Amino acid sequence: MESDLATDPDRLLPSEEKTRSIARDLLARVEDLPIISPHGHVEVATLSENEPFPDPATLLVSGDHYLTRLIHSSGVSLGSLGLGTEPHDPREVWREFMRAWPLFSGTASEYWLRSELVNVLHLDVDLTAETSDEVYDLLVARLAEPDFRPRSLFEQFGIEVLATTDDPLDDLGHHAALRSDETFTGRVIPTFRPDAYLDVTSPGWVDRVDRLIAEAGEGLVGYRGYHAALLNRRRHFIENGAVSADHGVRNPITVKLGPVEAQALFDRARTGNLDPFDQERFLAHMLYEMARMSVEDGLVMTVHAGVLRNHHSPTFARFGPDTGHDIPIATSFAEGLRPLLQDWGTEPGFHLVLFTVDESAWSRELAPLAGFYPSVYLGAPWWFLDAPDAIRRFREAVTETAGYSRSSGFIDDTRAFLSIPARHDAARRAEAGYLARLVAEKRVALARAEQVIVDVVSEAPRRVFKL
Amino acid sequence: MESDLATDPDRLLPSEEKTRSIARDLLARVEDLPIISPHGHVEVATLSENEPFPDPATLLVSGDHYLTRLIHSSGVSLGSLGLGTEPHDPREVWREFMRAWPLFSGTASEYWLRSELVNVLHLDVDLTAETSDEVYDLLVARLAEPDFRPRSLFEQFGIEVLATTDDPLDDLGHHAALRSDETFTGRVIPTFRPDAYLDVTSPGWVDRVDRLIAEAGEGLVGYRGYHAALLNRRRHFIENGAVSADHGVRNPITVKLGPVEAQALFDRARTGNLDPFDQERFLAHMLYEMARMSVEDGLVMTVHAGVLRNHHSPTFARFGPDTGHDIPIATSFAEGLRPLLQDWGTEPGFHLVLFTVDESAWSRELAPLAGFYPSVYLGAPWWFLDAPDAIRRFREAVTETAGYSRSSGFIDDTRAFLSIPARHDAARRAEAGYLARLVAEKRVALARAEQVIVDVVSEAPRRVFKL
Amino acid sequence: MESDLATDPDRLLPSEEKTRSIARDLLARVEDLPIISPHGHVEVATLSENEPFPDPATLLVSGDHYLTRLIHSSGVSLGSLGLGTEPHDPREVWREFMRAWPLFSGTASEYWLRSELVNVLHLDVDLTAETSDEVYDLLVARLAEPDFRPRSLFEQFGIEVLATTDDPLDDLGHHAALRSDETFTGRVIPTFRPDAYLDVTSPGWVDRVDRLIAEAGEGLVGYRGYHAALLNRRRHFIENGAVSADHGVRNPITVKLGPVEAQALFDRARTGNLDPFDQERFLAHMLYEMARMSVEDGLVMTVHAGVLRNHHSPTFARFGPDTGHDIPIATSFAEGLRPLLQDWGTEPGFHLVLFTVDESAWSRELAPLAGFYPSVYLGAPWWFLDAPDAIRRFREAVTETAGYSRSSGFIDDTRAFLSIPARHDAARRAEAGYLARLVAEKRVALARAEQVIVDVVSEAPRRVFKL
Repeated sequence: MESDLATDPDRLLPSEEKTRSIARDLLARVEDLPIISPHGHVEVATLSENEPFPDPATLLVSGDHYLTRLIHSSGVSLGSLGLGTEPHDPREVWREFMRAWPLFSGTASEYWLRSELVNVLHLDVDLTAETSDEVYDLLVARLAEPDFRPRSLFEQFGIEVLATTDDPLDDLGHHAALRSDETFTGRVIPTFRPDAYLDVTSPGWVDRVDRLIAEAGEGLVGYRGYHAALLNRRRHFIENGAVSADHGVRNPITVKLGPVEAQALFDRARTGNLDPFDQERFLAHMLYEMARMSVEDGLVMTVHAGVLRNHHSPTFARFGPDTGHDIPIATSFAEGLRPLLQDWGTEPGFHLVLFTVDESAWSRELAPLAGFYPSVYLGAPWWFLDAPDAIRRFREAVTETAGYSRSSGFIDDTRAFLSIPARHDAARRAEAGYLARLVAEKRVALARAEQVIVDVVSEAPRRVFKL
Repeated sequence: MESDLATDPDRLLPSEEKTRSIARDLLARVEDLPIISPHGHVEVATLSENEPFPDPATLLVSGDHYLTRLIHSSGVSLGSLGLGTEPHDPREVWREFMRAWPLFSGTASEYWLRSELVNVLHLDVDLTAETSDEVYDLLVARLAEPDFRPRSLFEQFGIEVLATTDDPLDDLGHHAALRSDETFTGRVIPTFRPDAYLDVTSPGWVDRVDRLIAEAGEGLVGYRGYHAALLNRRRHFIENGAVSADHGVRNPITVKLGPVEAQALFDRARTGNLDPFDQERFLAHMLYEMARMSVEDGLVMTVHAGVLRNHHSPTFARFGPDTGHDIPIATSFAEGLRPLLQDWGTEPGFHLVLFTVDESAWSRELAPLAGFYPSVYLGAPWWFLDAPDAIRRFREAVTETAGYSRSSGFIDDTRAFLSIPARHDAARRAEAGYLARLVAEKRVALARAEQVIVDVVSEAPRRVFKL
Repeated sequence: MESDLATDPDRLLPSEEKTRSIARDLLARVEDLPIISPHGHVEVATLSENEPFPDPATLLVSGDHYLTRLIHSSGVSLGSLGLGTEPHDPREVWREFMRAWPLFSGTASEYWLRSELVNVLHLDVDLTAETSDEVYDLLVARLAEPDFRPRSLFEQFGIEVLATTDDPLDDLGHHAALRSDETFTGRVIPTFRPDAYLDVTSPGWVDRVDRLIAEAGEGLVGYRGYHAALLNRRRHFIENGAVSADHGVRNPITVKLGPVEAQALFDRARTGNLDPFDQERFLAHMLYEMARMSVEDGLVMTVHAGVLRNHHSPTFARFGPDTGHDIPIATSFAEGLRPLLQDWGTEPGFHLVLFTVDESAWSRELAPLAGFYPSVYLGAPWWFLDAPDAIRRFREAVTETAGYSRSSGFIDDTRAFLSIPARHDAARRAEAGYLARLVAEKRVALARAEQVIVDVVSEAPRRVFKL
């Protein structure tokens, strides 16, 4: 039964008896600690407006590209899952989803969603094609209850901090409104995400940059206005509670250009006259500049690298980005980040958190880099790797080299608000399982492991993200 | 004792008691299911002619490059293992092999061969240098018995489908003969393998292509004749039962050329005037064309990528290909296959099965690609990775991202006919072991796992290979 | 308690009861076998002079870049750990270390150091910031005892062979002195390490090569003198007991140049007129030449590839090399070593041991290469990978393909003399754990595993390093 799996106290723990027993002990230390979510994609308006969630299909399926991509792979069109602009019946979307549910056996998504339905929404009906309408109606009713509005769930989830991800020109009005709302005591903070302003190949870059300079360039023009505007907007984010700036790049390459060359590249980019080599060069320069700004203003710099975005152009054209076909590629950090780390790697207070979807980089580059540079932190397993077995592989790959002190703690990186507790729960269980093995193999004393797991779950994200 | 290991009911299963008990249950569901072998290298003549197998050394050693390569690494020449044209005494080859037997401890080959000897050939003598002649004589006698002829073994093995791999100009007469033979009810199907006609660097390419056009080009000449001939031969294969076309490439790169450029490259290739860059470009184009043809005629497209063939030229010169020194290289799929997937990735009915020998691609690229594109399937662990621990690593790497529905099921890819049951047995045990862990960790319900393992073993290969 | 972990008989063994029981049996076969250390960085003078060791901080912390790098990552300057030329108080360094001790939880360094302190130095005080001075004083006293001088420890450790690593122009006088000293019966041998003479980008290359030719060039000049001098110095090393020549390269690339081109590159390099491409080309040529010399003179060729040395230039400028910021990079062997292996790969007596810090190469390239070429051996997990979990991953990655006969046996590669027993102990336990699983899963018979573990620990290094 689904609900048995979702509530089993030993779920995800190792099955070997001695190790499981240690893991239970470790888990008990952190199971009920507050959730710290320093990177993710929940919309702040969800909380500031606190409207009831929409229908179950829109809430749980259509916007979750982890789910829609795998259903799509079985031959179901994204349109019939509620993506795109065609009208659709959410109940039909839910039926598609229930038919596709067996596809998820063994996936991380299955664990998260089962937990959302059982532990958050208190569903006790099995998920089958036959029960689809019954489940849908139950969920519609549940979501209409006042206890299932966003703010109420935020409190039930025990979220201490939740970071959103925001456009540099966002006025952060929703954040300000939420902060000034005395009826809501949670901490919700914005994150500065300037990719679309740094990567000249990003569609609409010229217009976006024009707007940036006009709105925040202090009257300066060209590269100087651009540079000043970025600094200004970072300041605005900091004033609104931001602690980090996030950067998604295909290749984590940095280069330090002088102001003359930077300006020349910038000017040519605005007239569309930059070849691919110089496009990458300018982005590499701006990534270096972002580090310099982080050194100055203290925003934690996070880098999510190594993804070929929007792999299938026809799907992108019809349904837009974040629709399940961003594909990881081989990623190398040691050489590309060297210019940045030469200059800022040992700078006190600078924090650079590196995330990868190429597992081979964990033991090869990330643990060695984080094990030397005070600024470098191992980003938690991310995206496709944000799953129990992958988290175990991450710890196995990095711990012997870098210990526990160099990792960021878990980030959920999700836009699926209801999945947040399940994701953190899975990560805590995976951490307990790995640490339990270290104890069972007499590598770490139990008393020390009990400290470590609290640090991993609670102190590391506070420390690394300056919370 | 060797035979104890070969017959132990718990062989290859996890040792932890609870997990093993679940694994036993799962294994019992599939242990006796028919073997489906949709990709391999057994010669059809073996079955159509049904001659007794040759001596044990020729049957089990000389032609098995998994064995000969490792014996070669210990300093034994390939010539003394029966390769090449020098005369040799099979009994002496067998002695070499028995002396070398300890080299195989812990290898997949050991498991397969031990199982062949004990479970297929009913040997109950230990394999040592001292028993070499005794074993040899016993095997000679065994292979002379009527029950040990190919067709009889085919039936004993419970093979439901066996695919061979064939040259596009093969008339498939053996296949036709076997199909029309009413005394044989097994299903043996050819596979279209056009590498030597697509890769202009393949020795003899010009002559081979001349012959192809002459025999199947419908009177057309040049690239048009070549293209038509390939289509024709695919049709011939389909008429003879083929379900798939197989492609072995060093790098899985595709490009879509217009007919004018394709023809120009083809013409220059025939006169030997193509530089390495354009050689690769033409092959990339033809790989794209093969996908287009598969979309049209329905042949499943399999790609085995990432191998540097015939690494040691002196050995190649003396003993030919498939002599144990094909070496895997780092392989990237996401960028190279993009042109193909842009155009055909969501085409209904198109099946593209991707195999790799670079493990790092499993979680990084293959699971994400197969988890979005309806056409893309994860090829089973292949070649060096077709082994119990590697199969477990494969499932650990892909399942959390892509679940079970996107993988091809096991392929044995072998020319060692007698090893087929052992290979499928090992794969089924490895699958049972991994799934049992998912059940033991409360990630998948037992009842669901019982369905999944049947699907993996039996339904997936049927579905993916359109059997 | 630290000392409980250090002395627990089951430390590092698998926790599952049946497997652990088998592992205990296997470990018992090798636990007390002599240590063979065919590659490492202990100074021969330590033994030839047999002075008491310096203070604990200098002995155990300042020179161990595994420790200093991780403490540095926590924000402590290398200067305050005793590196560099600034005066420092060793007791203060020790306090820094004790404060940082929790950083090492779960690392290989923790295991080694705990074992050194408890099992070698008989410390029975917990390691905390509070006990720092007490521990320091105990260690000072301990190190003053005659039983804790280098030669005495050498004997207590049961070291049968210890290789140092030496500059080609080293006169090896310390080695000669030690050999002729009848009061010392241990075998300590030099290793020829010519990197700084082969890589023209190495600082001071021109002067070093001038000296090499002047001292050993037999009066020849230019490339001929250089070549002759290298041969001569190898001979000198062999006469002083060397069995191997070691090569550290960023990329394992080889090329065979004719003498005219080699000489031209050499001449241009000496005048500083070689571009980066030709610099790499010359090094690739010299790596090929080193193989040729090894074929001729019998020195085992070891290659440690894939490291970007001295990543952080400011730290290198201030504190020199080997200070914790050498970072691994993606490494490919199959293509780059092909020229070398084409010519020497099957040469009888030639031994080429390949080490990597890129795990993805283990199953992809190294096991397949070692599983064919009689000359190629799998170097043990090295550097960051020289740790219990990584050793297990190594065996899992290579054994199914290459068995046990193709690996080099453990090398400790350490300059931390007191850590040698702990490193070999950890490796033996990791080997026993993996082999025990093979036995528990009925893949290898227990009797055979008992042979294999002795071979791995004792025979393999003798065989591969010609000891």
